[in-house]
Amino acid sequence: MDPVSLSAAFETFEESWSPRIVAEANDQHVKIARLDGEFVWHAHPDADELFYVLDGRLEIEFRDDPTATLARGDLLVVPAGVEHRPVAPEETKVLLFEPAGTRNTGDAAASERTVEDPEEL
Amino acid sequence: MDPVSLSAAFETFEESWSPRIVAEANDQHVKIARLDGEFVWHAHPDADELFYVLDGRLEIEFRDDPTATLARGDLLVVPAGVEHRPVAPEETKVLLFEPAGTRNTGDAAASERTVEDPEEL
Repeated sequence: MDPVSLSAAFETFEESWSPRIVAEANDQHVKIARLDGEFVWHAHPDADELFYVLDGRLEIEFRDDPTATLARGDLLVVPAGVEHRPVAPEETKVLLFEPAGTRNTGDAAASERTVEDPEEL
Repeated sequence: MDPVSLSAAFETFEESWSPRIVAEANDQHVKIARLDGEFVWHAHPDADELFYVLDGRLEIEFRDDPTATLARGDLLVVPAGVEHRPVAPEETKVLLFEPAGTRNTGDAAASERTVEDPEEL
């Protein structure tokens, strides 16, 4: 029953686009990540994905909807199957909430950005 | 695809112990709440419950474990079935993740603290 300090967790790694698992609840993973620059277009066919901005700014682009801009303290759920591309204009820290086993690059071809098995902190 | 600002969401209500639903993802509800003082002892037989402290300080008491103290930026998952009592020594703002339909007072007898059907913001 030890609380997790997100600021301490962020001190354990420096890489961008490399999510870390900080907690599990109801078969969902809570992850943290640093985002910086453009990610790949992708969708998660069976998983809603929640983004919560802890610090910085995140733009989430959609094929058929206007870009959503999230400031610190904002959250957005990208529904399953919706193609999206996260873009962080500056180094941005996020909390993610998605089913355990969700691949960060979703249905996109595997790339240097793909993390199949995120580290658990 | 409109982001939710948690600070704006908190401006829509003032009551303590009255969770509001701010998002839904994978059959889980994301809720916010103000906590102030002592809650009731309870457990959620089938639901893990995640607490993330946005502002303030939260103590979570357990029957068989030391009290967990969460500062701003700390999170803790209380596993399903584990009896616990949240105590906020000052007004505290939290983000909660739990399965949709989870009753705030869990298996405790219904009381003035029980909210059967939280408002969706």
